[in-house]
Amino acid sequence: MDKVRVGIAGLGRLGKVHANNIANKIKNAELVAACSIVQDELDYAKKEFGVKSLYTDFHEMLKNPDIDAVAIVTTSSEHCWQIEAAMNAGKHVFSDKPLGVNLEECLQAKAAVDAHPELKFFLGFMRRFDPSYSYAKKKIDEGAIGKPYLVKATGIDPEATVEGSIRFAKNSGGIFLDMSVHDIDLMRWFLGADPKEVYATGCTFKHPEFAEAGDDETGVAMYKFDNGAIGTIHVGRTAPHGYHIETEIVGTEGTLRISPVPEKNLTMIYNEHGAVKECIENFQIRFDEAYRIEMEYFIDCVLNDEKPSVTVEDGVESTRIGFATTESWKTGGIVKI
Amino acid sequence: MDKVRVGIAGLGRLGKVHANNIANKIKNAELVAACSIVQDELDYAKKEFGVKSLYTDFHEMLKNPDIDAVAIVTTSSEHCWQIEAAMNAGKHVFSDKPLGVNLEECLQAKAAVDAHPELKFFLGFMRRFDPSYSYAKKKIDEGAIGKPYLVKATGIDPEATVEGSIRFAKNSGGIFLDMSVHDIDLMRWFLGADPKEVYATGCTFKHPEFAEAGDDETGVAMYKFDNGAIGTIHVGRTAPHGYHIETEIVGTEGTLRISPVPEKNLTMIYNEHGAVKECIENFQIRFDEAYRIEMEYFIDCVLNDEKPSVTVEDGVESTRIGFATTESWKTGGIVKI
Amino acid sequence: MDKVRVGIAGLGRLGKVHANNIANKIKNAELVAACSIVQDELDYAKKEFGVKSLYTDFHEMLKNPDIDAVAIVTTSSEHCWQIEAAMNAGKHVFSDKPLGVNLEECLQAKAAVDAHPELKFFLGFMRRFDPSYSYAKKKIDEGAIGKPYLVKATGIDPEATVEGSIRFAKNSGGIFLDMSVHDIDLMRWFLGADPKEVYATGCTFKHPEFAEAGDDETGVAMYKFDNGAIGTIHVGRTAPHGYHIETEIVGTEGTLRISPVPEKNLTMIYNEHGAVKECIENFQIRFDEAYRIEMEYFIDCVLNDEKPSVTVEDGVESTRIGFATTESWKTGGIVKI
Amino acid sequence: MDKVRVGIAGLGRLGKVHANNIANKIKNAELVAACSIVQDELDYAKKEFGVKSLYTDFHEMLKNPDIDAVAIVTTSSEHCWQIEAAMNAGKHVFSDKPLGVNLEECLQAKAAVDAHPELKFFLGFMRRFDPSYSYAKKKIDEGAIGKPYLVKATGIDPEATVEGSIRFAKNSGGIFLDMSVHDIDLMRWFLGADPKEVYATGCTFKHPEFAEAGDDETGVAMYKFDNGAIGTIHVGRTAPHGYHIETEIVGTEGTLRISPVPEKNLTMIYNEHGAVKECIENFQIRFDEAYRIEMEYFIDCVLNDEKPSVTVEDGVESTRIGFATTESWKTGGIVKI
Repeated sequence: MDKVRVGIAGLGRLGKVHANNIANKIKNAELVAACSIVQDELDYAKKEFGVKSLYTDFHEMLKNPDIDAVAIVTTSSEHCWQIEAAMNAGKHVFSDKPLGVNLEECLQAKAAVDAHPELKFFLGFMRRFDPSYSYAKKKIDEGAIGKPYLVKATGIDPEATVEGSIRFAKNSGGIFLDMSVHDIDLMRWFLGADPKEVYATGCTFKHPEFAEAGDDETGVAMYKFDNGAIGTIHVGRTAPHGYHIETEIVGTEGTLRISPVPEKNLTMIYNEHGAVKECIENFQIRFDEAYRIEMEYFIDCVLNDEKPSVTVEDGVESTRIGFATTESWKTGGIVKI
Repeated sequence: MDKVRVGIAGLGRLGKVHANNIANKIKNAELVAACSIVQDELDYAKKEFGVKSLYTDFHEMLKNPDIDAVAIVTTSSEHCWQIEAAMNAGKHVFSDKPLGVNLEECLQAKAAVDAHPELKFFLGFMRRFDPSYSYAKKKIDEGAIGKPYLVKATGIDPEATVEGSIRFAKNSGGIFLDMSVHDIDLMRWFLGADPKEVYATGCTFKHPEFAEAGDDETGVAMYKFDNGAIGTIHVGRTAPHGYHIETEIVGTEGTLRISPVPEKNLTMIYNEHGAVKECIENFQIRFDEAYRIEMEYFIDCVLNDEKPSVTVEDGVESTRIGFATTESWKTGGIVKI
Repeated sequence: MDKVRVGIAGLGRLGKVHANNIANKIKNAELVAACSIVQDELDYAKKEFGVKSLYTDFHEMLKNPDIDAVAIVTTSSEHCWQIEAAMNAGKHVFSDKPLGVNLEECLQAKAAVDAHPELKFFLGFMRRFDPSYSYAKKKIDEGAIGKPYLVKATGIDPEATVEGSIRFAKNSGGIFLDMSVHDIDLMRWFLGADPKEVYATGCTFKHPEFAEAGDDETGVAMYKFDNGAIGTIHVGRTAPHGYHIETEIVGTEGTLRISPVPEKNLTMIYNEHGAVKECIENFQIRFDEAYRIEMEYFIDCVLNDEKPSVTVEDGVESTRIGFATTESWKTGGIVKI
Repeated sequence: MDKVRVGIAGLGRLGKVHANNIANKIKNAELVAACSIVQDELDYAKKEFGVKSLYTDFHEMLKNPDIDAVAIVTTSSEHCWQIEAAMNAGKHVFSDKPLGVNLEECLQAKAAVDAHPELKFFLGFMRRFDPSYSYAKKKIDEGAIGKPYLVKATGIDPEATVEGSIRFAKNSGGIFLDMSVHDIDLMRWFLGADPKEVYATGCTFKHPEFAEAGDDETGVAMYKFDNGAIGTIHVGRTAPHGYHIETEIVGTEGTLRISPVPEKNLTMIYNEHGAVKECIENFQIRFDEAYRIEMEYFIDCVLNDEKPSVTVEDGVESTRIGFATTESWKTGGIVKI
């Protein structure tokens, strides 16, 4: 095999990004099939990427023998059964995060992955592949900050897109399930440990619609890890300056801080406001490169028969921790994980 | 009265700073007396500042009718009774923080202050007077970030002075009582609210001596406030880069971040390490100006008969919260305040 | 035509970058031929990109009717005649900068380009396509800084690669011809004007080998523009921190500064040196994206029959100005352009 | 002598700053006399600082035997004769910069200073005493950047105060004499060398009033130094963001950059504009500390009988260079110094 032939399921906002990467930016990949229940998305795949095999039924796509791997970029609630079905059909699987929307189905997906060690499974924790994040991990592995023992993670969506968040609030599963899974994964990745206890809370000061929907605008959580390390997460939905993803890793010999200013690029403007760094608008721009690099990595794993570094366990654990965090936020108590 | 005549008690590391400010940098103040149980400190006061009235007994100093105000910069455990004695002797009082080492004596000191509305009492939360912090408060009061609802406070002592911290660990009262009182005060000040619940923990990864002494090297705490706001505190003792005090205030319309880089000055050096901002070594340098400004402010309050903005209640509450935090850290549970 | 079939001439350090972009990263381009006098480079093209048509003679490659465009990434002294030959053979031309090594051949190349308005010619001033630079230009065009009237350009190669510069010093044509052509182009582009006079000088303080070779380690030049604007250029070869490209554009309503810290990525490390931003090592990393984007742009111009924004005149003028700058540096006098 | 008794001449904007420092902030100094031709200024000295000896005639003040030193903060054109008169009257002299308004009077003042080696003379190049600048000098002296060989100096007044500059344009002596003397002094100080040749120009794009008055809004100059080093100066009058003083010193082992962002304090605000550092409004705020420190230094020199590090030669040379720069700006040619 010198090219991996991919069928994509789901061509929404992020699906289009992945499809474009597969079709146009990764030399060892080919986009050969697309599946969606939305006709526009199939038309898009045909027109933009010349995809010929189009499906409205995921199972039908899996029957196509010319597909080596599937990229699952559907609604979160579809991920688990699609992973299982794809694995059972002998396809390598790239699944967007989160793994699933409850622990049970995650464990079922894990069982399917475990049952097929001959197939590659990759979960789209793309932040790990962002050049700044992967650089930070490399520095840590090289010992640049000694032993890491505290991670402070921040993830705030832009106020500019808050309308969508408000509409989605009733069905978001709560701010922690909706927003903190990347930060949870980063904490585990950087600390090399698992949280054993969480205390979480939330608040809503700007848009009462969140509270009215039983959700919150801002969430803060604190974790004790099994190796004695500590983590904090701050997620929010109303950053006026843009899309703010920031992570700090404190170690015995130094501290790494990633993106304290979510700068749009290397330009600074001095004007009547002062010295201004304009900020990144949204996740697509912030992680554009990471989305490409993670897919490239998945394709390389398939071609080189290597087990991906992001595993189904990472998906299970981040979901488990997300649910525990949500429980603490809802009950107000400490939750053991 | 056109000058306030001050007697100082305690001329240790910080006492010397205050004495110098009173004697040399504040035009409406005069350093007329000094009290210490350490002969060297009295000699220093005489030689450096020409102080003529020297005492080894605090009560004796209070009998001096030529003293308008006392500056208490003694060991924390002496603050409360000295405040009470000074108030009863008719002196205005500037006391270094913390107010006291347990809640009972704090309340007793408060009673003494309340009993003397004709006298000024000021507690040395100097960070409020640092130009960057007071500017941030002014911006918030002007509405620059809307309604503040989250404070993230960080305070880390330099690794360079860790030996002293280790020696003191057994008697520090724990990292939160020792280090977080300023951050607690800042949270209350910026949020205009009081915490009602705390969850705290700590860890020790670099210097096991802290854990051996029943203390910790790093502490992290999370607070729910009575108005729905949230706070987090991260204190530590081993910053390799210097003295790191950073505070972030998140509001509905913007975020203020104070000193993410504890830069020594406005110089950056480009060298083989990269683009480097050298960092501030210690609290004396970081808050040099704040110590002068807060004393100037106290003196002005005395001269202009104005009630200081930092009150004995601020001292009582920060101590109360410090103890609750410590209890959570020790017990592992949530503590109501 | 839905794909542009490209033959590349020269597969050295930068040639490999362009070849990889054409072969793997640009969907509407195909790398169909390669020409080099170095057998290893031809082998590389065959092995890495599967190029089948390999030539040691540029004229032979031009005879290939299956080539739509040529990318000229040969030694500077070969550019002009190759441009001319390619144009006359009916090929679109992408040429790396500089246009040529003397004004006469530049004008001859220009004549060839002018004689073939049906063919696209593009000169690789890739900085214009770097996201930060193109963003700055967009901001200026939108009026963000009013009327620009001063450009301060800096370009310093890393000390880490100084050995190569020293070896090349005798044949570099002098630091200004070797290093300032991008900065000259940026000044013209941002100011929308041409310099009419230059005053330049140089010095050598670290590596005497430069002076011994009749070259200099550092060059500084100042320009008066025909519209009254001003420009300064600082080029050098010995930045200990990495590859430092910085440009400032001052306008009547504000100033834009691009890349004052040539940061490697969004990570900052706090360690015993202070708060450190590690810096970019070399031009390949700094302008990796720009090289891809400029080639994409050239391909799009060919496909959409649009005249590229970088023109042969830009090449002629930057060369003319580079020579004038060199003359001033050598003679010590003011040189009219 | 344990206190230096100072008489001040001139209590304008900057005179008030110096008077306040002498009267209230420097323990070994006393403000005992004031001289001004403006009655309001004398009233101010009396009321604010309790100065009892008030003069409208400088010579009368010099007759006062209770004055040890005079601080000359009058109009530039008065400096030289007042220095001479004060020296001849046996007073130590602190003179504000510039030394004088033409070279002849500067040399005459120098002769007076040279004739009185028993008296201290200090010229107010306060930037050298700013903590960031003095830190940079110390780093250079310690070898942190190796041998310095290029200084790039920038000084831009805020647009907010441009009205005053416009009114003054006709009598400013031109932008270089008016604005570049500090930058000239910094170049000489950091490089430890003297410029031997200058090429300068100016432009006016925002406020035509400057050009109409025969002055310019922006000036750029380039210097060749006698040791082979190079300097550039950019001065301007219309920075929308505030008061922008920035200096870069390039050396063989590293580069120091002072104040690339003229930040008001350590606070950053994230709001709808991006990540914003508000900037310093004016020179009084920027150099507030430097004004105090330089006066403290002068007083210490008097008390400790030490020759000040800023000399009358520094004043003569900076004036000489300022005139040469002005000549180049006016004639358009290279001027030998």
